[in-house]
Amino acid sequence: MDIATRVHNHKWKIDPIVRSLIDTDFYKLLMCQSVFHNKPDTQVTFSLINRTTRIPLAKLIDEGELREQLDHIRSLSLSRGESTWLRGNTFYGKRQMFRPDFMEWFEKLRLPPYHLERKGDQYELTFEGKWPEVMLWEIPALSVLMELRSRAVLNTMGRFELQVLYARAMTRVWEKIEALRQIDGLSVADFGTRRRHSFLWQDWCVQAMIEGLGDKFTGTSNCLIAMRREVEAIGTNAHELPMVYSALAKDDAALAQAPYDVLSDWHEEHEGNLRIILPDTYGTQGFLDRAPDWLAGWTGIRIDSGDPAAGAEIALRWWLERGEDPTTKRVIFSDGLDVAMMQDLQKQFSGRVQVSFGWGTLLTNDFRGFVPDDALAPFSLVCKAVSANGQPTVKLSDNPEKAMGPAAEIERYKRVFGVGPQARQAVVV
Amino acid sequence: MDIATRVHNHKWKIDPIVRSLIDTDFYKLLMCQSVFHNKPDTQVTFSLINRTTRIPLAKLIDEGELREQLDHIRSLSLSRGESTWLRGNTFYGKRQMFRPDFMEWFEKLRLPPYHLERKGDQYELTFEGKWPEVMLWEIPALSVLMELRSRAVLNTMGRFELQVLYARAMTRVWEKIEALRQIDGLSVADFGTRRRHSFLWQDWCVQAMIEGLGDKFTGTSNCLIAMRREVEAIGTNAHELPMVYSALAKDDAALAQAPYDVLSDWHEEHEGNLRIILPDTYGTQGFLDRAPDWLAGWTGIRIDSGDPAAGAEIALRWWLERGEDPTTKRVIFSDGLDVAMMQDLQKQFSGRVQVSFGWGTLLTNDFRGFVPDDALAPFSLVCKAVSANGQPTVKLSDNPEKAMGPAAEIERYKRVFGVGPQARQAVVV
Repeated sequence: MDIATRVHNHKWKIDPIVRSLIDTDFYKLLMCQSVFHNKPDTQVTFSLINRTTRIPLAKLIDEGELREQLDHIRSLSLSRGESTWLRGNTFYGKRQMFRPDFMEWFEKLRLPPYHLERKGDQYELTFEGKWPEVMLWEIPALSVLMELRSRAVLNTMGRFELQVLYARAMTRVWEKIEALRQIDGLSVADFGTRRRHSFLWQDWCVQAMIEGLGDKFTGTSNCLIAMRREVEAIGTNAHELPMVYSALAKDDAALAQAPYDVLSDWHEEHEGNLRIILPDTYGTQGFLDRAPDWLAGWTGIRIDSGDPAAGAEIALRWWLERGEDPTTKRVIFSDGLDVAMMQDLQKQFSGRVQVSFGWGTLLTNDFRGFVPDDALAPFSLVCKAVSANGQPTVKLSDNPEKAMGPAAEIERYKRVFGVGPQARQAVVV
Repeated sequence: MDIATRVHNHKWKIDPIVRSLIDTDFYKLLMCQSVFHNKPDTQVTFSLINRTTRIPLAKLIDEGELREQLDHIRSLSLSRGESTWLRGNTFYGKRQMFRPDFMEWFEKLRLPPYHLERKGDQYELTFEGKWPEVMLWEIPALSVLMELRSRAVLNTMGRFELQVLYARAMTRVWEKIEALRQIDGLSVADFGTRRRHSFLWQDWCVQAMIEGLGDKFTGTSNCLIAMRREVEAIGTNAHELPMVYSALAKDDAALAQAPYDVLSDWHEEHEGNLRIILPDTYGTQGFLDRAPDWLAGWTGIRIDSGDPAAGAEIALRWWLERGEDPTTKRVIFSDGLDVAMMQDLQKQFSGRVQVSFGWGTLLTNDFRGFVPDDALAPFSLVCKAVSANGQPTVKLSDNPEKAMGPAAEIERYKRVFGVGPQARQAVVV
């Protein structure tokens, strides 16, 4: 390393975890553009929720360090090269996915303030403001907390202990890749930004997939890594759209309609691989039963909770009922995947529907069993829209362990969306 | 990396494996000094012997590349810093171990020519010349061939495949270190230069031992690594001394005396930890039975062939017979060691004698099972003095699998040294 580089590196007061506004999931930017056009002034609150309460985040992570990292993110703005890439790159075969008015807004954006408070052994971290601004906090906030927790554990380890830790992690990822390589017709993308072990580790995993999987690796949800490694940026939309639209609904009738309004807005903007249904926010079966016919014409469905095979079977039956040919459709599995599950799902659905996998935490953060007390094992940290214009949001999903919102509202949503008893599934990550 | 470094690196026509005359075993330099004083004009031939004939070295390694590497070694001379280190460093607590006349000679030394010929799938590689010069070829010749073979296999692998290969190797070494760390009173040194996977890998292994074993790691036989990593250089003497002294013996009586002449010369030069008996060249039991009493006063014994526990028991009995207290003596095990064997030997001999381990090939080249056809597994390559002043050398050792020399001479040596039937031991490395 030359002297100038070393001196430059010493100038950093901290070692920033998130160094770019596009070190985030691609679907966030797609949704952000949609929100920027359709609901720019909605006031939304995002809140961090540690579902794994046995991990005492506030004991592990120094509040001052956390503030420094969050403050650093607030100092970031879109760089010229990043802007050029977003404006000029082809996403899903389409150029100028991001329109000039959105890009001009994004180029000027700085992330809004955060509210951080320690409550016992956990942090209360919230972001309040205009929806298109605060929504961009979700991914960097999660990445920062995940990586600060990793650093807290790594901090006590020696240099070679560290090297061997990463050697073990590399070996594990590579063995997974070697197993995946055997799967005929595999199509897998990295969805692991939010709960990654660290930025550099995610970047390594993506590069390993590029070399190890060839065409079977379809890209990454992380825009910065997609840009740097010249692979596809992958993603469409998430639960926050139906959650916020639903919270804004004036009555039960509007609530019942809200999830379809989301997709109607989306339908106008996008086509092809971006027309992916995320049906589970308020129960997959009911959502599809009541869906308008035009939705059956969409390209695919993403299965993000509940038993994945059961969810896909529901989707296939629904397409057949609506006169669609499932073999032309795509099912994207994205919930708690690891190799064995991908092998099983590919086997069950190959030939019946096009199958894709969005592989997340167990790609970018499988450090299970490597250190005492399993202190580097991934855990379930989320950052969700909890209210919109003062109304609480609700998420039911196909797994009651993932339900969110005030109890009374959860009951109301279950009634409105006709959700009956659900099978509980342990939330791995 | 700065531009100048990159440009500099591009100037190398080859990527040299051996880049320093002290990238060799410490005992070679100690022996070289002894030979320089006692037998400077003896004409000796060293010859490469691949005991693992199923490895077709000449098919794997390009002759041109091998010549380039050997030619590069002939271009090396002692650097100023290396000379300063040899002259000024403390070895086994003693300064000026290398005397000025030897250092002046060594500073001017370039290695003599080599003779290389392809014979079927193997190479015939020999070095003829004055003993103190040609003896310094042994270790670099072995290192070059071992590493060229590694490179031939690595050459077809992708970048991440390579990274994962080393990740696996690191994990394996570290797990060995973690197991060794549990052994009370352990004392282990790196003896792995000659059959290492590569220079950088040996250097990594030494650093890992420094961090992982602390005081239980006593140093390395490799002078360059000892200098750079600021650890002890370890070693005393080897079979080549009795082999050459014996070949020079004029009759059977002189032959019977030759191994003791070696140690008599050595005795005058060295004390303490350098007075280590290597008794197995022509059979340990007979060598000790006939040894002069002054030899029982030496510090220890190195066990380098045969069943190691049996060899050590012979040594302990011998010390007791000669009125010595074995608990003040040291046994150094250095043949085909790995973790389980070290655990067993430590258990058997701890408290009865001081125990040390010289851990070689299975430290610095345990790539077994990592690639198809086990193409990176270590193999048994040696480079030995095969003749002295026109007379063939002989080695018997405590394992007939390791015997060397013309059959008639082997029989004569067995008669002279009273070596009966020996137990065969598979030669691992």
